[in-house]
This record gives sequence, structure tokens and C-alpha cells, in this order.
Amino acid sequence: MTTTTEQLDVFAAAAAAAAPVWRTAPASDRAAWLRALADALDAASDEVVEIADRETRLGAGRLRGEVARTTGQLRLFAGVVEQGSYLELTVDDADAAATPPRPELRRMLTGVGPVAVFSASNFPFAFSVLGGDTASALAAGNPVIVKAHSGHPELSRRTAEIAAAALEAAGAPAGSLALVEGREAGNALVRHPVIQAAGFTGSLSGGRALFDLAASRPDPIPFYGELGSINPVVITAAAIDARGAQLAEGLAASFTLGVGQFCTKPGVVFVPRGTGFEQAVADAVTGIAGGPLLTDRITEAFPAGVDALTADPSVTVVAHGAETAEGARPVVLATDAAAVADRADTLLEECFGPVTLLIRYDGEEDLHRALRAVQGCLTATLHAEDTDDVSATLALLQDRAGRVLFAGWPTGVAVTWSQHHGGPWPATTSLHTSVGATAIRRFLRPIVFQDAPERLLPPVLRDEALATLPHRRNGVLTLP
Amino acid sequence: MTTTTEQLDVFAAAAAAAAPVWRTAPASDRAAWLRALADALDAASDEVVEIADRETRLGAGRLRGEVARTTGQLRLFAGVVEQGSYLELTVDDADAAATPPRPELRRMLTGVGPVAVFSASNFPFAFSVLGGDTASALAAGNPVIVKAHSGHPELSRRTAEIAAAALEAAGAPAGSLALVEGREAGNALVRHPVIQAAGFTGSLSGGRALFDLAASRPDPIPFYGELGSINPVVITAAAIDARGAQLAEGLAASFTLGVGQFCTKPGVVFVPRGTGFEQAVADAVTGIAGGPLLTDRITEAFPAGVDALTADPSVTVVAHGAETAEGARPVVLATDAAAVADRADTLLEECFGPVTLLIRYDGEEDLHRALRAVQGCLTATLHAEDTDDVSATLALLQDRAGRVLFAGWPTGVAVTWSQHHGGPWPATTSLHTSVGATAIRRFLRPIVFQDAPERLLPPVLRDEALATLPHRRNGVLTLP
Repeated sequence: MTTTTEQLDVFAAAAAAAAPVWRTAPASDRAAWLRALADALDAASDEVVEIADRETRLGAGRLRGEVARTTGQLRLFAGVVEQGSYLELTVDDADAAATPPRPELRRMLTGVGPVAVFSASNFPFAFSVLGGDTASALAAGNPVIVKAHSGHPELSRRTAEIAAAALEAAGAPAGSLALVEGREAGNALVRHPVIQAAGFTGSLSGGRALFDLAASRPDPIPFYGELGSINPVVITAAAIDARGAQLAEGLAASFTLGVGQFCTKPGVVFVPRGTGFEQAVADAVTGIAGGPLLTDRITEAFPAGVDALTADPSVTVVAHGAETAEGARPVVLATDAAAVADRADTLLEECFGPVTLLIRYDGEEDLHRALRAVQGCLTATLHAEDTDDVSATLALLQDRAGRVLFAGWPTGVAVTWSQHHGGPWPATTSLHTSVGATAIRRFLRPIVFQDAPERLLPPVLRDEALATLPHRRNGVLTLP
Repeated sequence: MTTTTEQLDVFAAAAAAAAPVWRTAPASDRAAWLRALADALDAASDEVVEIADRETRLGAGRLRGEVARTTGQLRLFAGVVEQGSYLELTVDDADAAATPPRPELRRMLTGVGPVAVFSASNFPFAFSVLGGDTASALAAGNPVIVKAHSGHPELSRRTAEIAAAALEAAGAPAGSLALVEGREAGNALVRHPVIQAAGFTGSLSGGRALFDLAASRPDPIPFYGELGSINPVVITAAAIDARGAQLAEGLAASFTLGVGQFCTKPGVVFVPRGTGFEQAVADAVTGIAGGPLLTDRITEAFPAGVDALTADPSVTVVAHGAETAEGARPVVLATDAAAVADRADTLLEECFGPVTLLIRYDGEEDLHRALRAVQGCLTATLHAEDTDDVSATLALLQDRAGRVLFAGWPTGVAVTWSQHHGGPWPATTSLHTSVGATAIRRFLRPIVFQDAPERLLPPVLRDEALATLPHRRNGVLTLP
């Protein structure tokens, strides 16, 4: 089913009409609308998990967890809206004695206007119709038009229906949330004059094409894309000595989780040569089966990606996972740091699915030369011991990642105030996160009122409201 | 003088080497380096004002004030760095009981890396080598490479020399600040792989070209451009009744200030038909002389811009300013709101220099139809009385501007915590400001440390430092 240009225009006009209502709605209303969405999705959990499992084959257990994460995320943003620090309320009182005399300025952040959200294949709830981009855009006070992912069309439609009914029942305006389908409709969406910003999670090629459309508009709009990441892991010899088997098991579990279809999958793992870690990983992965992949495209791309890696003369196959009846079987590959430094374009290409590449290094210099070839990533992980001097390695990892881990594995992204899901290009196109409370900042713009009569100020900028909200006055940050 | 590709590569390599030093420098060092720049520029005030006056002809008085504004701005950012809330420090403690168990996350903002700054013709200090973009980029912890404006080359070179000496004496690393000259060098700068973000103040055409270069990089970088703004003013009949002569004098002073070469110049003024306001403005402007414009290009563009406006059959000349020996003579034009609504492309084109266009409206509907044709602006001004119902007009202005004024005139931009100098396209390309404390956010990216041993955390994220800095812990905002 493809949305026509005429249908998109209708959705856009409705979104434009809804925008001032969302933007000026009191925090209590906006929070209630977000919670109504969460409650409705929770209530429909059995039904939507069944549809999602049929379309994505991710399994009911995982999908049930993802619904909980998604509704938790909507409720987190309801709390963010009520807490109010996202408004960045700032007042400078007038100062007639200053040179030149200073007017009164009152600053806040306000919604940018209707937002386009491009949903992802691998999280049919958490990065889809009611996922993080939608939740943060609505929380910021903007209507949303979602481009459905072709991997789960029925689920997208049903989720949008549930959302529309919940929003209407909760008193939100018509036009708050719409769904479009088809690649052409997506392209038209990001170029539509009503749309003021876009969020995207997906492939580098698809994201880059949409980024280019957003940037080439007569009025360019911000495009927040999460595009791809190989999530390097560095393990020291001391760490392998101390807990090699445990690390091997952790890695095997992480790169095969969700059949390797997480954007935070550890795709390359730097290990010292000659430590026996390869054998430990081989032992750990032997019993782990793969499974069906999300879409036909991913199903075709996975063996092609593995073939592209093994075509390199330096690459060997270390081990396979358990025989897998359908879909992708896990595979562990290995190469040398020197080869990676020379042929990063091939060897550091992200490959969606249950594959990871062990990269043997001979000392720090060899490791660092290869690390310098690593592009921006969502995460980087360092497994070291207290006795290791890791400062130079850590500096290289920090430069390349948005989140640096010192224990555990990068799959699993907590939705909290502190989270950052982003990183230097091509991890994301922006200086912002697509997960966690601060994701709201992407869909807000500053506005300042100079010498405004109190009755014409937005209510949150009046003195009465400021007393109840975090704000800065004459440079001093104050809590209610 | 044109910077060669080889010279740019040398500057870029030095900036890349300086970046980790700036990024990890303690707040006290970074603040000291900013204050050293301010002190050095203040100390050289006589010398640089003389050069600036020779190159820009803006007059010693105005230029002396601009030096003070520029050094005040550097000191403001030193204070921002010390105050520390710009770091957005956020900690979520580990929670083993959560489903799934939650790791410890510590988030901060950190410098993006070397920044390109394109300076403006009309503020040879405040938006030039040591202007707001440079100050905020350095404050964020990033080395800067400035593209000099061709309108004040000698001043740019001398300012860069003073800055380099001051930074060296204060102990900042080599490579902290460099200067390039020539259009080709500017284009190469924004495409240079070392550069991670760019700030720009200038024309829509020049800014758009650089924006397109930044967006078309293999790794796109954020481009923060301040490109153009007509800064609409709306005056109600009641306001003219109450204080028409005062408003006319204020307008005449504002649109001719700096020979009309401010990006916040009130370019279009909506006035009710038949109020006598045109005559009042004519009276007010008669005694005001113009003067030489900043560059040959602007000198040629001004009469061409005025001609383009008066070529429209609806446009009449209301009045001229005093005879002006050299450069541009102030001129007031008038047209009708209906013509503006029909031919916005012509009539709402920004014209740099001492010209303003009065737009007569017949009632609210006529006014609003024309206002809907106004594109994004830095400012919008509403002069009304308490008895006016301005809610619909205000909504239209808010949608189109970053700063809304209810008294005074938009020229004059206080450099404070609350200021916002930005707005919807084409005012700026971004959701950020180029003036005021929050301009620092443009040159920062988030980074999160997960389960990091305390000794490997950046010092500001350790518990000891958190106790002295504003931060959020487990969702709760806390002040030191």
C-alpha cells in the first residue's frame, strides 16, 4: 500500500493545524496524551505482539519486552515534560544601568513543528510508529507523521490505529499522528514544506539518501539519522588472562542476540594475538543457533556481507554457531590488525546479522593503527584490568564513539536520563541522541520574548510558573 | 592574500593536535585562555580600532564599543565554562534489580573537534576572528580556524596575531587558532576532514553555498549559518495613536543604525493605512544622514536592491534621509499588504543598507495574509497597546522569529544567558543561537561512560567533581 501525494498533503495539513495545539498545550495535557498512548499499547499487547511476531519473527518473548520498553519510553517522556528542565527557561531582567541599557529577555525552547519519523526494521515497537523518535517529538510538542517500515506494515497500521484512538479519547487534536507507506511517500515526506525535522533509524545508504533530500530542500531541515555502527571492542591480554572464558561467552551472546540485528552489535573485536581467545569464542558460539532474519533484504545481505569479508585473504573462519534450520547461522571470523589498517573499507564494513570479526593485534602500536581506521560508532567497549595502562587506547575510542563501555556488552540500551545513542558520523548525523531523555532536544527551537507584557508571555515564562520550574535567572540556575 | 591548500593542511594538523588538549583542559585553564584573549584585545584596542576604522569606515566610537562587546563576550564564555552547567552532567546509578539490570551511565557534553568560523563584514570584531563563534567554539573545548572576511583583511591578520601571542603566553597549545584567507580556502576549510562543525554569519547566497558543501561531505558536519532576516515590525493603530511620533523616531534611528547594516535591521514595518505614520517617519528620517557602506559589494548592492523594490508598481518613495556625501542615503519606501502577499519574493527580499519598507494594511485579515508570506527571521517586533487583541498576530510572529520584541527595536543584541540570535530558515540553518551563553551547545557532542572505573572517567564526571557542579543524578537535578 502506497500513500499518494494527495493523502500526504491531507496528513500534512492536519499536522500543521495540530502543531499549535501541541506546542501550547500545558505540560499536564501533553503528559496525559503520552501516557494514554502507553496505556493503549500496553492494553493491546497480546494483539500487537502476535502481529509483530508474524511479520518480524523476532519471537513473542523479545517482542513483549520491546512493548514494555516502548511504553516505558512514552512514560519517561511524560515525566520529562512534567519536570520541565527541557524548556531551558532563562530570564535576564532588564538593566537600565547597563551600557547599552539591557531589555528584559525571557527564553524557552518550543516545538519546531511537524516531525517526520522513519521507523526501523529491527525494533518494530521501540523504533517504529510509537518509538523513541515519535515519543520525543510529541513530548517536544510536535505532531508526527511516521513513514512505516515495509518490514512490518500490518503492525504499523494497527499501532497507528491504536494510537489515533487513544489520542482522540484523551482529547488530543486530530492530526497528531499519521502514517504513510512506500518509499516515494517517504521521500515526499522529508521534502514536505510542513515538516520541520526528521528522525531516522536504518541503513547508511537509506539514511544518507534521506539526509541529502532534507539538506537540499529550499529550506533545509535537521535530519537526525542513526545510520550504522561497527561497535568496536578492545580486549587486553590481562583481561583475557583474568576472565577470558567469561568474555568469550559474553561476546558470543551479544553478537548473536536478536540474530545479530542490533545497531549496537559488537561487530569487530580487537584481541591480542596468541591468547587462545579465538578458541574460547569458538567454544562459546558452538551451541548458539541463529534464526530467521527480519526481511528478505537482510536475509540476502547477510551471506553476501560474510562473503565479502571472507573474500579478503587475511580473513579466516574461526567457528560457526549451531546448525540453523532457517535464516542465518552465527559465524565468527578473524583477521589481523595490519590488514584492517590497510583495507578498512572492506574489513570494517558493518554487516547486519550474527557475525563478528576478531582482529588480532601485536602490541599497542599495531592496535592503535587499526583503531585509527575505525569510523564513528554508537559504542566502543574496553575490557581491561586495573593494571593495564589504557589511556591512549581510551582516547582513540572516545573520539570514535558516543558511548564507551568498561564492562558488559553494547547490546542493550537503557532508556534513561543519561543515555546517549549516537556518535560521530556515520553512527549518526547529529550531535544528539535518539534514545534517552535528551532526545527531546532534537525537536525544539529556542524563542526569546523581549520586554513582553506578562499577559502575552507563554504561561511557562511568567513569574508564577517560573517559581515551580527549573530555570536560570540573571545567570543563576534555580530549582523549584 | 590567499591561503594555499598546503597551508590549510598545516593549520588543520595543528588544530587536530590541539583538540585533545582543549577538550580535556580543566575549566580553569580554558577560562584563563579566554580571558587572556579578552585582555589582549582590550590592551590593543587603540591599534585595532584604527585598523578597523580604516577598513570598514564604521567609525571609532562604534568600533570601540564593539571591541568591548567582543571582549565581554569572551569573558562571558569564560564564566559559562566555570559555571559548568553547559556540560549537562547526568548520572544514572546502576540498578541490578531493574529488568533488564541497568548499568551505571555517566553522560557529559564534550568538544566536537576543530571548528571553522566564517566571519562577517558588518561586525569586524564581534562576528570576526575573536567573535562569538570563536569564543563559543573555544569555550566548548575546540580549536578554531577562521576564514577572514575580505572586507577587513589587515584587521583579521592583526587580531589573529594578537590572539596567537596571548594564547601562547597563557599556555594554550599551538594550533589553537589559525586564520585562512580567500574564497577557495574557505570552501576547502568547510570540506576539510579535520573540521567537525562550522559557524557562519553572512549572506543567504554565500551561506547556502557553504551549507551545501558541509552537507555534501562524505561525513556531513553541522553548519550553523546566520543568513538573512527582514525582521518584520507590526504596529497597531492604538500604538500609533498613543505614541506615533516616538515610534517613528525609533524606527528611523533603528533602520539607519550602522548605515542599515545590521542583520537585525527592521526591514519591513506593517502599519495601519491612513494613520499619518508615513509622514511621521518622513519627518524623523529627514535629518538622518547615511554614510559609506562596508564593502564595494554592499555599496553596489544597496541601490540595486532599492531599485528592485521601487520597480514594483505598488512601491512609492516616502522620504529620504539627509543628503549623504559618500555611500548610501537613507530611504523609506511604502507599499500595500495585498501587494506583499502577492509578490513576497520581490517585496520581502532582504536589502542590506539604510532602507525600510512600510507596508500599509487594512484590518487584521489583510495584515495576516501578508504576514503568512514572511519567511523565518531573527526577530519580530510588535508595537501594540494593552487594549489591542494581538493573540492571532503574535502567533504568526512567533512562528516566524527567534526573538519577539514588545518594546524598542531589534537592532542591539544583548550578549547574555537568555539571548537567542537565530530563527526559522533562512534566518539560520539551525535550532541554535549564535549569540549568548547557549551558543556553546553548537560545538559539543554527548558522550556516555558505562560502568567506568572512576580513574578512567573524565575528571568532571567523578563523584568529587559532581559535588561541585550542577548535575542530574537518577533523574533529579542538583545544584552544588
